[in-house]
Amino acid sequence: MSAPILVIPGSGELTATDRGLLYGEGVFETVHLRPDGPWELGPHLERLARSAALLGLTVPHGLADLAAGLTHEDGALRLVVTPATSFATVSDVPQISRIQRRDGIRLITHDLGLTKRPPWSLSGAKTISYAENLAAKRWAELQGADDLLWLTSDGYALEGPTASLVWLSGDTLCTVPAEPTGILPGTTAAKLLSSVVALGLRTEERMISVDELAEADAIWLVSSLRGLAEARTLNGSARAASPWTPRLLGLLGFIHRPG
Amino acid sequence: MSAPILVIPGSGELTATDRGLLYGEGVFETVHLRPDGPWELGPHLERLARSAALLGLTVPHGLADLAAGLTHEDGALRLVVTPATSFATVSDVPQISRIQRRDGIRLITHDLGLTKRPPWSLSGAKTISYAENLAAKRWAELQGADDLLWLTSDGYALEGPTASLVWLSGDTLCTVPAEPTGILPGTTAAKLLSSVVALGLRTEERMISVDELAEADAIWLVSSLRGLAEARTLNGSARAASPWTPRLLGLLGFIHRPG
Repeated sequence: MSAPILVIPGSGELTATDRGLLYGEGVFETVHLRPDGPWELGPHLERLARSAALLGLTVPHGLADLAAGLTHEDGALRLVVTPATSFATVSDVPQISRIQRRDGIRLITHDLGLTKRPPWSLSGAKTISYAENLAAKRWAELQGADDLLWLTSDGYALEGPTASLVWLSGDTLCTVPAEPTGILPGTTAAKLLSSVVALGLRTEERMISVDELAEADAIWLVSSLRGLAEARTLNGSARAASPWTPRLLGLLGFIHRPG
Repeated sequence: MSAPILVIPGSGELTATDRGLLYGEGVFETVHLRPDGPWELGPHLERLARSAALLGLTVPHGLADLAAGLTHEDGALRLVVTPATSFATVSDVPQISRIQRRDGIRLITHDLGLTKRPPWSLSGAKTISYAENLAAKRWAELQGADDLLWLTSDGYALEGPTASLVWLSGDTLCTVPAEPTGILPGTTAAKLLSSVVALGLRTEERMISVDELAEADAIWLVSSLRGLAEARTLNGSARAASPWTPRLLGLLGFIHRPG
């Protein structure tokens, strides 16, 4: 299925003088589209509005209504807001995301070379100035891995270029706090942590060094389309598949579909 | 004058599924357009091709011919290449650039919080993932300055968000080397350094601490549209106007026009 383009009612036309296209001054969200509609649409729209505000942009009113009416067997809904236009695209979830949801990933770590985010940093906004994120992921693939986990310069885990980090330590499911680190607050990670209490797990937001992470009972990169992608290797060391992976995927409503 | 859009012959159409618009995966150049054509077009096209190669993109053949035929009294030519399209826009040089060319700027410094660029860094490419650059400049304006000079975490000068640093120390005109620092190689700075031998100046590429920079005889941010914008204050300390500013602007063919 190709990607139909749905222009948000009330927004302007696509133009080559859009600062979104000229300077990456725009924001986006990727939402998992399901048979019963866009999953976790509310939190995604809230984050889109927060990202937009950081760039001085406003999300048009028509966007929520347009998105709410969409369904798909296993789809990707992209919402984009730039100074000149706002639009949505719908496509299949990429094959590679479905495979990683089922089979996990080879994960490597590398530090960002950052001691402290500068005061103008947009790292807490999901902007369309996303080329470095995708370059980081391509670099990881060139190293023979599937994905990357960014570290602070003193070796603490932050996030992936396109996903949040979640790990299980005993009976506690953990993720990295967004506020002190400047990482993007993960909508799927938040939903996961708020849901697992029903399974008898505790939850915690805390920092973790890469050495301590290697000792975790399970490690996942968590994002809206892949759901949970379990790290089956970390920096080349194999890790046993966790029985929690299918449980947590099921809890979030991700159903294994043919790769 | 509004910005006409010139689609490069042989390139595709503007589309909302362009990875340039969705993820800032594209490259650009800003060229000063003069009555006799685009200034330093060759070096700009070379840098555009190098930036494009870093993202796996190719500059269409028609672009050089299209650009070479354009003229303007004091104009801005933008060349943009994305996976889906390539185009050029022409507009007036912004009023603020002309004013800063004539009157100089209030310059402040801040470190990038970087110890080392990560191996996937695109900092040496001029990509359209430019939102952080513009956010940095807006932050400087909120501090009551006109522009910003980025420093390493140990206090050495790098570049501005949209310009190169050049300074005069005795009879030597200096700039920061691109190779070891990961800064963008400046086309206007390169042209300036290769031209000043005719005025009896020597040239050097070297690192400089912000403390040493404060002792320089003159400091400029150098870029294609502003030409040279002299720092008339550095972190709040006033600096006398250098007699070299009009000389160097003249040498590069920038003529004072009414602000």
